[in-house]
Amino acid sequence: MTSTREQIIQTTCELLELQGYHATGLNQIVKESGSPKGSLYYHFPGGKEELAIEAIRYVGTIVLRRIKENLVQPDSPAEAIRSFIRNIAFNVELSNYRAGGPITTIAMETAASSDTLREECQRIYSEWQAAFADKMVVGGIPSQKARQLAMLIIAAIEGGVILCRTQRSREPLEVVADEIGRLIAITG
Amino acid sequence: MTSTREQIIQTTCELLELQGYHATGLNQIVKESGSPKGSLYYHFPGGKEELAIEAIRYVGTIVLRRIKENLVQPDSPAEAIRSFIRNIAFNVELSNYRAGGPITTIAMETAASSDTLREECQRIYSEWQAAFADKMVVGGIPSQKARQLAMLIIAAIEGGVILCRTQRSREPLEVVADEIGRLIAITG
Repeated sequence: MTSTREQIIQTTCELLELQGYHATGLNQIVKESGSPKGSLYYHFPGGKEELAIEAIRYVGTIVLRRIKENLVQPDSPAEAIRSFIRNIAFNVELSNYRAGGPITTIAMETAASSDTLREECQRIYSEWQAAFADKMVVGGIPSQKARQLAMLIIAAIEGGVILCRTQRSREPLEVVADEIGRLIAITG
Repeated sequence: MTSTREQIIQTTCELLELQGYHATGLNQIVKESGSPKGSLYYHFPGGKEELAIEAIRYVGTIVLRRIKENLVQPDSPAEAIRSFIRNIAFNVELSNYRAGGPITTIAMETAASSDTLREECQRIYSEWQAAFADKMVVGGIPSQKARQLAMLIIAAIEGGVILCRTQRSREPLEVVADEIGRLIAITG
C-alpha cells in the first residue's frame, strides 16, 4: 500500500516530468495526489523545494536501478547501452510524449536559482553516469574513456528526450542509440 | 539603435534562457527591458505565448547564423564541429553558467502544453540540424548518415549544456565535443 507521503512524492515526480518545476504548484500536487493539504505541509515542512528534492531523489534512484538492471545483459556494452536507449525511446512514445527525462526540466530551470536543487540534480546525473561507465569498464574499456563516453551518453539521452518530446517522434532517441552504440563498439 | 520591440524580445530571450518559460512573467520582462507596460501589449497583443514565439524565433535565427558561419572553416567536418562545440562550452562558462541552450528549457516545459511553441522549437531544432548535416555532406559524408549524426549532435549539445549548467563546469560539453569529433572522423 502506498503511504500518503509516497503518493505525494509520486505525483510530484509525474508533474515535474510533465511540465517542470515552476509550472507545478502545491495546490495541483494536493489535488492530483488526492491528499489533504495539511499532510503535504506535515510531511514536507520545507514546502515546494523540499518536496522537489525528495521527488527527484526518489525518481533518480528508480532510474539508477533501472539502468543497472537493464545493462546486465547482453555482455557487450555497445549492445546493452544501445538497447537501453532504444527502450527509453519506446517508453517516451508510450507516454504519448508526456514523460521521459524526469529531471531534465527542473535541472535547467533551477540551475541558476537553487543550489540545493542544482546539486541534487548533479549528484543524480553523476550516479547515472557511473552506472554506464561501470558497464563499459567491465566490457574492457579503460576507465577514463568509459567515464567520458558515459558523460556523452547522459548528455545525448537528455537531449534526445527533448527532441523526441518536441517532435512527437521516437526517432531522435533511436538515432542516438544507434550512433552511441557504434561509437562504443569502435572504442571497446 | 534598438527599438522598443527588439529590446523586449532580447530581454525575453535572456530570461527564457536563464530560467525558462513558466518562471518568466510579463512584469519581469517589462521591468528588465525598461519598456512601458503598454508597449508590450501594443507589440505583442497575443501576450506571453506570442512574445515567447517571437523570442525563440529571434534567438533561433541568431544561433543558426552562428552555426553556419562557424562551420565554414576548417574544411574537416569533424574538426569544425568539435571546435564549435568547445566554443559553446567556453561561452557557457563565460556566462557563469547562466546562459547556453536558449530554447532547451522552454522546449521541455511546453512540449505537452502548447503545440504552437512545441512546433516552433521543432522547426528551430530542424534548421540547426540541417546546418550541421550540410557541413558533413560537403565533407563527403552520405546525406542520410549526416542527418543522423546531426541529430545526435543537437541532442548531445542540448544535454551537454544541461550538464555544464548543473555541474557548473565546462567539462561535459568539452567531452561531447571530443567524442562527437571522434565519431564524425571515423565516419567521414
